[in-house]
Amino acid sequence: MAQHNIHLTGFLYSHYDPRVKRIPSGIAPVIAIQKGAPNGLYRQVYQSYRKAIVDGSLRAGQRVPSTRVLARELGISRMPVLSAYAQLSAEGYFEGRVGSGTIVSRSLPERAAIVQPAAGRSKKILGERRRVSKRCLSLSIPEGFHRARGLGPFAVSQIAFEHFPLAVWNSLVTRHARNVHAQSLDYGDPMGLKDLRGAIAAYLRTARGVRCEAQQIMIVSGSQQGLEITARVLLDPGDQIWMEEPGYRYARSIFACSGCRVVPVRVDAEGLNIADGARKCSAARAALVTPSHQYPLGVTMSASRRLQLLDWAESSGSWIIEDDYDSEYRYEGMPITSLQGLDRNSRVVYIGTFSKVLFPSLRLGYVVVPEDLVGRFLAARFALDIGPATFHQAVVADFIGEGHFARHIRRMRLVYAERRSALIESLRRQLGSIVEITGAQAGMHLSAVLGGISDAELGARGASENLWLVPLSPFYMSKAVRHGFVLGFGSTSVQEIPAAVHRLHTLLKSKSQLKQLSC
Amino acid sequence: MAQHNIHLTGFLYSHYDPRVKRIPSGIAPVIAIQKGAPNGLYRQVYQSYRKAIVDGSLRAGQRVPSTRVLARELGISRMPVLSAYAQLSAEGYFEGRVGSGTIVSRSLPERAAIVQPAAGRSKKILGERRRVSKRCLSLSIPEGFHRARGLGPFAVSQIAFEHFPLAVWNSLVTRHARNVHAQSLDYGDPMGLKDLRGAIAAYLRTARGVRCEAQQIMIVSGSQQGLEITARVLLDPGDQIWMEEPGYRYARSIFACSGCRVVPVRVDAEGLNIADGARKCSAARAALVTPSHQYPLGVTMSASRRLQLLDWAESSGSWIIEDDYDSEYRYEGMPITSLQGLDRNSRVVYIGTFSKVLFPSLRLGYVVVPEDLVGRFLAARFALDIGPATFHQAVVADFIGEGHFARHIRRMRLVYAERRSALIESLRRQLGSIVEITGAQAGMHLSAVLGGISDAELGARGASENLWLVPLSPFYMSKAVRHGFVLGFGSTSVQEIPAAVHRLHTLLKSKSQLKQLSC
Repeated sequence: MAQHNIHLTGFLYSHYDPRVKRIPSGIAPVIAIQKGAPNGLYRQVYQSYRKAIVDGSLRAGQRVPSTRVLARELGISRMPVLSAYAQLSAEGYFEGRVGSGTIVSRSLPERAAIVQPAAGRSKKILGERRRVSKRCLSLSIPEGFHRARGLGPFAVSQIAFEHFPLAVWNSLVTRHARNVHAQSLDYGDPMGLKDLRGAIAAYLRTARGVRCEAQQIMIVSGSQQGLEITARVLLDPGDQIWMEEPGYRYARSIFACSGCRVVPVRVDAEGLNIADGARKCSAARAALVTPSHQYPLGVTMSASRRLQLLDWAESSGSWIIEDDYDSEYRYEGMPITSLQGLDRNSRVVYIGTFSKVLFPSLRLGYVVVPEDLVGRFLAARFALDIGPATFHQAVVADFIGEGHFARHIRRMRLVYAERRSALIESLRRQLGSIVEITGAQAGMHLSAVLGGISDAELGARGASENLWLVPLSPFYMSKAVRHGFVLGFGSTSVQEIPAAVHRLHTLLKSKSQLKQLSC
Repeated sequence: MAQHNIHLTGFLYSHYDPRVKRIPSGIAPVIAIQKGAPNGLYRQVYQSYRKAIVDGSLRAGQRVPSTRVLARELGISRMPVLSAYAQLSAEGYFEGRVGSGTIVSRSLPERAAIVQPAAGRSKKILGERRRVSKRCLSLSIPEGFHRARGLGPFAVSQIAFEHFPLAVWNSLVTRHARNVHAQSLDYGDPMGLKDLRGAIAAYLRTARGVRCEAQQIMIVSGSQQGLEITARVLLDPGDQIWMEEPGYRYARSIFACSGCRVVPVRVDAEGLNIADGARKCSAARAALVTPSHQYPLGVTMSASRRLQLLDWAESSGSWIIEDDYDSEYRYEGMPITSLQGLDRNSRVVYIGTFSKVLFPSLRLGYVVVPEDLVGRFLAARFALDIGPATFHQAVVADFIGEGHFARHIRRMRLVYAERRSALIESLRRQLGSIVEITGAQAGMHLSAVLGGISDAELGARGASENLWLVPLSPFYMSKAVRHGFVLGFGSTSVQEIPAAVHRLHTLLKSKSQLKQLSC
């Protein structure tokens, strides 16, 4: 369809010109034309635009449709539209130039009256607290989630962005962009793309000892969504679930929002203490664990605890949700097969994500679903958001299939191993015996446990100085046993680490807390 | 990092070769080495691989790491790994060729014993029905969702894929692929990309009269997720919500899963009958409506009903959820400003999607959130899946900002208008007075109401013949008042339509139902 445009300051200018194809097309506004109305068509068009500009529906610089397009959309002749546009232009509401179409005048003052369209109602609303659901009141707004990301040292859940193989990735994206065809525009399989599910199944069988077939893999938009879907299938409001104490806060919000009751179960040097769980609530419907690298303490669950947990699940008819967080990078000790791989009773739902091992804004993760629950998971997922977007699934499938994934993990393990060593060395050298380092065997963070401090207060202070110190104590549901900080080393380079640890040290000293500690 | 490989049939072959960079890298398997064990390192590596292949963890054709990589990962010397690989190769478990690395032998028989890793446990599980949540039992597995998509005429929620401007789209994707940088890999704003939110706000203010600023726009993965988040913020288990009767089934599953009670409110020629709702449950917490093009009947809600609904919401302190489904294409009558735009009390949550106007596998939609609830929505969304993926948001922002979106909508309106006319004409000519056509003023489907038939039975029969006839009766919660079919014309070309209507006619006659009807 040829595009036309009109040069308003010179009144009328319209002919076919190949250049004008490049003029961005404007959205037609809501103009309800009454053909027999006393106000002529010209006035109706003029007044609709004028009102839309004055009340802020149309804004300075915004493109409007050509007169020809608008006339066709309204089903009227072009003359009244031309007259209205000319009038709006003469009055300074519109401006137009050859080759760039007509826009709402950029010189219109950004008056409060203009840009505050909902002023009348906002004032009233601001005064009252309107009723929302009780279940959403328990959810906290992730303040600072955004502000602190990508900044300062020790950020958690951050990767070594500068080491991501962007060239390879972008060439795969470009290749797929060239191959987008009509079929790939349609809804994909709600379980995910077949190729990607196959590639993940092969990866998990090999690297994690997970026992699975591609049909059991569900692609989700990250481990959080995987957990949400799992909670829906396994738990009802009122059901009890074991969670690690201390444990991952954002998982608690899923259970809180579902009305489930969280039973905090102590984590010790071997991981989740099954005896503590059995004592508190042996009939819990499920247990959520992070066995590869417990969050936040970083402990790896021992083989004996894994078997105890599986025995408990089988004897009580409960489910295990294994968030295999940070399993890709291990620096010390032998790899331990996943809980799912040790299980002989299909009691484990296994969740993983590409957020750490590829990158967070990809929003792709996966769930390995017990064979008999695949239909239930599918129904729950479909009700939640129909299914995953297709494009990047195909990119990741190729990234894995062509060997880039294995190579990337190997490369990154070296990068993170260096950062980890530098951090441990700096902590030991600068903080000495006042710091106890836990959970450094694997993953992209460790915990620096510090006695006798108020970690939440220091954490807030650090954040204000762009030092990302995630306090340990808020991860406890009951009274915090340990204070200290979760220190990420994913995005903190070897060069930055000594100075960052020095700043941590200074912060501790400034609170006159260190002296007290070292006594 | 240079990649190395080994040529196993000739025993040992390893030197640096630029070609081998192209060898896909294999994932290292879980091998727990015990250094002082009586079994030598060689036997431990050999046995781990052998076991992994026999139990199906490693499959035929799967790549394994080079001996050098594996030795480094296990922290042992290379010689025992070389010996183990040689043995595995000699016994036919591995095969390897110069320039393509080592793989698990492709000639291994795909024996049941090999490819059924979970055989032992599956048998046991299959016999029992394991306990899952009650709330997920109400969710139906969308059977046929997949099978029937993209096939046969009259498919609903399908677009004219062949008219999508793939060249423009792919050039934008490619441009963004070139511009992916480290920063864009990090978590994005949980509310969505600023540019896209701005572009959507401008579009909605202009085209739909929505009163909003960019800060109120939340990007979601389609209208279903938008509805889920809205339900979480506004409704608790036990709360009552008005839904259109007949109404959108997948919305019901959201409320059912949340434990909300759905109050079916009659839809007549003017849309939702507010009086009927007020009679049944005047204190409902919310009402969900599809005012632009009611699903499934296709009615456009009249202006007077819109005002009645807004009055009810204000007086009862209830919320309105406006799913502005199918608002982009209107063929008859004047455009009507959205409910949100008419509202003076910020009682409307407005939901839209790009699934129909761009394409379904994009999985992008948006919610316009009342100013005072933005924090609540953000917290609920964060708990659900952290936030949206970044990449395609940037693509869509440019697609809108550069005018392609407005042009695409205009082009598609003509395409769909032709299909719609052809369908109406064919239905009238072939089915005559036995069919009542409703809801053809807008959107990409209409309803063909047929008295005295069993639409579910005929729909199933049609599906088996690749004719997509979505029966009307299952959209009713109470007894179906109307039978008939929702007929999509989005993906059915003008040329296909007469023959498809003829097949529908034949189907009706074959059930000997038509004769009865026409009497």
